[in-house]
Amino acid sequence: MSNELNFEGWSCPLPLRDHPTVILGHGGGGQLSAELIKHLFLPAFGNPALDQLGDSTVLQLAGGRVAVSTDSFVVRPLFFPGGNIGELAVNGTVNDLAMSGARPLYLTAGFIIEEGLPLAQLGVIVESMAAAARSAGVQLVAGDTKVVDRGHGDGVFINTAGLGLIPAGVEIGPRRARPGDVILLSGTLGDHGMAIMSVREGLQFETAIVSDTAALNGLVQDLLQAAPDVHVLRDPTRGGLAASLNEIAAASGVGMALEERLIPVEPAVQSACELLGLDPLYVANEGKLVAIVPAEQAEAALAALRAHPLGRRAARIGRVMAEHPGLVTTRTGIGGTRVVDMAIGEQLPRIC
Amino acid sequence: MSNELNFEGWSCPLPLRDHPTVILGHGGGGQLSAELIKHLFLPAFGNPALDQLGDSTVLQLAGGRVAVSTDSFVVRPLFFPGGNIGELAVNGTVNDLAMSGARPLYLTAGFIIEEGLPLAQLGVIVESMAAAARSAGVQLVAGDTKVVDRGHGDGVFINTAGLGLIPAGVEIGPRRARPGDVILLSGTLGDHGMAIMSVREGLQFETAIVSDTAALNGLVQDLLQAAPDVHVLRDPTRGGLAASLNEIAAASGVGMALEERLIPVEPAVQSACELLGLDPLYVANEGKLVAIVPAEQAEAALAALRAHPLGRRAARIGRVMAEHPGLVTTRTGIGGTRVVDMAIGEQLPRIC
Repeated sequence: MSNELNFEGWSCPLPLRDHPTVILGHGGGGQLSAELIKHLFLPAFGNPALDQLGDSTVLQLAGGRVAVSTDSFVVRPLFFPGGNIGELAVNGTVNDLAMSGARPLYLTAGFIIEEGLPLAQLGVIVESMAAAARSAGVQLVAGDTKVVDRGHGDGVFINTAGLGLIPAGVEIGPRRARPGDVILLSGTLGDHGMAIMSVREGLQFETAIVSDTAALNGLVQDLLQAAPDVHVLRDPTRGGLAASLNEIAAASGVGMALEERLIPVEPAVQSACELLGLDPLYVANEGKLVAIVPAEQAEAALAALRAHPLGRRAARIGRVMAEHPGLVTTRTGIGGTRVVDMAIGEQLPRIC
Repeated sequence: MSNELNFEGWSCPLPLRDHPTVILGHGGGGQLSAELIKHLFLPAFGNPALDQLGDSTVLQLAGGRVAVSTDSFVVRPLFFPGGNIGELAVNGTVNDLAMSGARPLYLTAGFIIEEGLPLAQLGVIVESMAAAARSAGVQLVAGDTKVVDRGHGDGVFINTAGLGLIPAGVEIGPRRARPGDVILLSGTLGDHGMAIMSVREGLQFETAIVSDTAALNGLVQDLLQAAPDVHVLRDPTRGGLAASLNEIAAASGVGMALEERLIPVEPAVQSACELLGLDPLYVANEGKLVAIVPAEQAEAALAALRAHPLGRRAARIGRVMAEHPGLVTTRTGIGGTRVVDMAIGEQLPRIC
């Protein structure tokens, strides 16, 4: 935990003030659990759905195609330049839903808290989640809190699951890339992963590296308005752009050719990668998307991305082809060609 | 972990055999993650929805009232008499959905694995989840795996979230208890919590105490057929029957009077509770429900519960009244009356 963080802004409501840190009882289902819900979770997330306080929450849902997704967040440190685990947990699942073209509507949240976590930190995390949910236009409708004994967790882990509705006519999926399609990227690569790594490694650059964590559902909506036939969307998180494109190439049975010089990377991120021997293509992003679109809609799609604040640096970075199915290659800056394969394991552990 | 457990029955499919334990790379989103999904998760859970392998899963859903729920499971030990964390994670969320009268349909699962967990244990847990899901008639449609470094987790934590449809006409909720209603309990109290505690404390009894973990959606369906006007359903997990009834009494603004001698408890559970100074009313259950029903449907409801294998020992244990709103009392075995209040904190940590 960085010492520069200041939690004094978060005023702990009574009666939680008696326990400045989370204790096992807060996960016990008794009075302490009820207090945590009443004084910490409900004030932040409160909405009619959550206020039902049943074993499950009852929602009225229109029928149709529903997107469902889940993700657990174990990022370390909990607070990093540009965000914290709370907004990451909201944006991450919102983005997974948006990548199927869905309009994200509802989230659930499960907290696994290590005994000893300062309540003020939990408060800031929860308020960040609430702000991120408001900003993405989703409601947190069900939650759960467990507390594990000291030394058997790591501050807090957060799981979110989400639900969204897919508008009629939208057909997006990892098997839909076709030869001739254009590969678009919505902005710079590697910001999130390198923001985390620069904190962990104590790296200092002229320009601070800041996580790109953001909800992409608004960007997707604008994109689909301009280019309704988008074939594939994916947010390159763990494993980076390399993993996303390899998965799509395998699922669609197509090859992909990238142009490395067209892929935007912040200079500070580039420097940090060089220092740590990392490749930006493999570094996680939390507010970027890759869109694979038919060539005839590529210009309109790119323009729509660039017109949105989260897509200003969008670029056309490559194309889909019939040759070498399952293989992703890139032309390097000096004109050679290399294979962008999938990393075996974990280049950067616990970045989300 | 008990030494008596035998994981040899679980044959680890290649190429996972090269890594007998989970390593950080299994959560990295690269090839190792893909192998875990392909060789361990998909064979167990495989269904057309999960096979989509997108960032989110697309389902066709009828419109109407949808129940949503989430729960994280951090039980220690992972394997206990009568079950393991995997089936608990499925049954727990199925039950939360069933308690709103919903027919559970879909689950998501998020795994937070500690580096070093034997893959054979993960395999057994995942197969138990799959079996529990089949038995409850639900599909696991989305999943996520994260790995945390050794010493920052505890074997595996599992979050499940679930989705169910509430049939028309069903109106069940914690605010619906009314004076005159009858309180029914579907079976013996305390089995799950004491099964866990007897393992942890090394207690031996003539009859082994076995967790009651079970999916209750079938029982609820039979109950609703016989007594369509059920007012409240709840499964008394963390905090036990005491917490459940206190929450309902507060939400509905009613009092409750129990008859302690009518509450079924297994003799071995009773002995274990006495030995450890615990009260069965506060001990967690994972396969029991409390139903609050209008008096005129109580007989039919009780008969329906008793006709189901999971409700054979169902009993009428008390009644709802207008007096003392928010208060739960019980007549004790020797004829006195005591208040059953909500526990402050955690009587039994990490039992689910």
